[in-house]
Amino acid sequence: MDSSITPLRHGGLSLVQTTDFFYPLVDDPYMMGKIACANVLSDLYAMGVTDCDNMLMLLACSNKMSDKERNVIIPIIMRGFKDAAEEGGTQVTGGQTVINPWLTIGGVASSVCQSNEYIMPDNAVVGDVLVLTKPLGTQTAVNAYQWLDQPERWNRVKLVVSEDDVRRAYQRAMFSMARLNRIAARLMHKYNAHGATDITGFGLLGHANNLAKVQKNEVGFVIHNLPVIAKMAAISKACGNLFGLLQGTSAETSGGLLIALPREQAAAFCKDIEKQEGYQSWIIGIVERGTRTARIIDKPRVIEVPAKDREGELW
Amino acid sequence: MDSSITPLRHGGLSLVQTTDFFYPLVDDPYMMGKIACANVLSDLYAMGVTDCDNMLMLLACSNKMSDKERNVIIPIIMRGFKDAAEEGGTQVTGGQTVINPWLTIGGVASSVCQSNEYIMPDNAVVGDVLVLTKPLGTQTAVNAYQWLDQPERWNRVKLVVSEDDVRRAYQRAMFSMARLNRIAARLMHKYNAHGATDITGFGLLGHANNLAKVQKNEVGFVIHNLPVIAKMAAISKACGNLFGLLQGTSAETSGGLLIALPREQAAAFCKDIEKQEGYQSWIIGIVERGTRTARIIDKPRVIEVPAKDREGELW
Repeated sequence: MDSSITPLRHGGLSLVQTTDFFYPLVDDPYMMGKIACANVLSDLYAMGVTDCDNMLMLLACSNKMSDKERNVIIPIIMRGFKDAAEEGGTQVTGGQTVINPWLTIGGVASSVCQSNEYIMPDNAVVGDVLVLTKPLGTQTAVNAYQWLDQPERWNRVKLVVSEDDVRRAYQRAMFSMARLNRIAARLMHKYNAHGATDITGFGLLGHANNLAKVQKNEVGFVIHNLPVIAKMAAISKACGNLFGLLQGTSAETSGGLLIALPREQAAAFCKDIEKQEGYQSWIIGIVERGTRTARIIDKPRVIEVPAKDREGELW
Repeated sequence: MDSSITPLRHGGLSLVQTTDFFYPLVDDPYMMGKIACANVLSDLYAMGVTDCDNMLMLLACSNKMSDKERNVIIPIIMRGFKDAAEEGGTQVTGGQTVINPWLTIGGVASSVCQSNEYIMPDNAVVGDVLVLTKPLGTQTAVNAYQWLDQPERWNRVKLVVSEDDVRRAYQRAMFSMARLNRIAARLMHKYNAHGATDITGFGLLGHANNLAKVQKNEVGFVIHNLPVIAKMAAISKACGNLFGLLQGTSAETSGGLLIALPREQAAAFCKDIEKQEGYQSWIIGIVERGTRTARIIDKPRVIEVPAKDREGELW
């Protein structure tokens, strides 16, 4: 499960809790703080928990930063983290900061819930469909952006994408990673989700497999569609299936929720989330009778997700 | 405050929560795990919270360890951490592990409490006394033990202590750091404690000052006695007041609770904890009228705490 659920001594309540931390992957410290926070909260949202009671921030400042770098950058990261927490209707009430060779950022999210406030992930049934709420390709976008400064790497991909494509994809990835999965979590209740997980380090297929494994029913997940940030599929192919983006093994950071929904509700779910947030979701697969595993079909349809999602957005 | 207290949406309950992590300081991985866990829980105990509902473990494996080192050492650290959690009547329900240049270990402790389950730290009154539940000197002991292998450092202290003294002090420090402050927390309720904190990185004086600063009444803390692991005061003096052990500034790891108690209850508190655990506590100071600061008198009495605390203990 994405969060731990601990029954409490009081009034039938449970403590739903998660922790996560990692290393910077974008060059904007404010956005980095937001991404770290969104990534921690996402584990609660995957359980359908929409109200986080508090957060702790975990921070390790690099001992390789100068005092000035530290004094400028760390407060900006913290502000990003706090702003995202506020956006999620919660607050940072404590934490711990240490010195470390690597700058590290993460946190803890906790919610004390009644049992109707969270959704167990294990109730998928044959006939459900799988919805994904963010496009894939954040790792490819972040790496391709770094290659702009590495001629030997850039030469391999410049035949299939322009510098502008890469910058746009990087921006798209950054905002996607910083986006909270909170509304998706709320709509899981409205549309009777049968279970969900969030897509992070193990990639789409890894997390789909983990979700399949815990199912109560004898089901399997079959994925037909791969929504990918525009041009990232081309980069992956040009680099010999780099990271396995089209095989579902490419790591994501603060990715979307993968949700098993009753077939008749899935389209309404996607419409509702788009109406509220302006971002597309996609029906990417189906739940069949099976042995609690997930697979991607031989030639999945790759959906190119444009960097410009909404009329008027600048990226 | 040592823990964050967040009012919850349910039934007048609050979430009391803390996090801490640091780097190895003893060479026994099992004890290191126990110390890390005791150190995290200590922040709850300082608030008088005795029932921790769950813990998360935060671990960074060093990328400089070989696979074999990692596969042997990390599980032992984790076992120590889990065993200490169990000793504290709680369990580790999740966590996060990453790779990092420095081995890092820590965790999160959470308790959902009614308001009578925790004790606010700000109610000290003139006439209270200050009790300390573990001796000082863990930093000196750990460092002196490392100097056994560094002739140039060892030559400075070998005139005042023997190798045996140092090994015994190190063992004493290790077991002291691994000891939970849970019974002390329980007795805070029984003996009507007016507030407490735990002694860690800022040393006795630093934490005493922090506790003084948050008091509601116009009080000050005056410390007369310094219980110190045997021979550590001599080492500190021989090294030119190393770490400021006798000035109260030497960092402690997983130190004791510093508790403001009504004068007429303090002796009974000390007797009770010794009866239950076999370890001494000490009345080290008094609460006077003052300006919310703490100080150590000019020539405090140094109490040498023998490495052998209980009849029959081997160290």
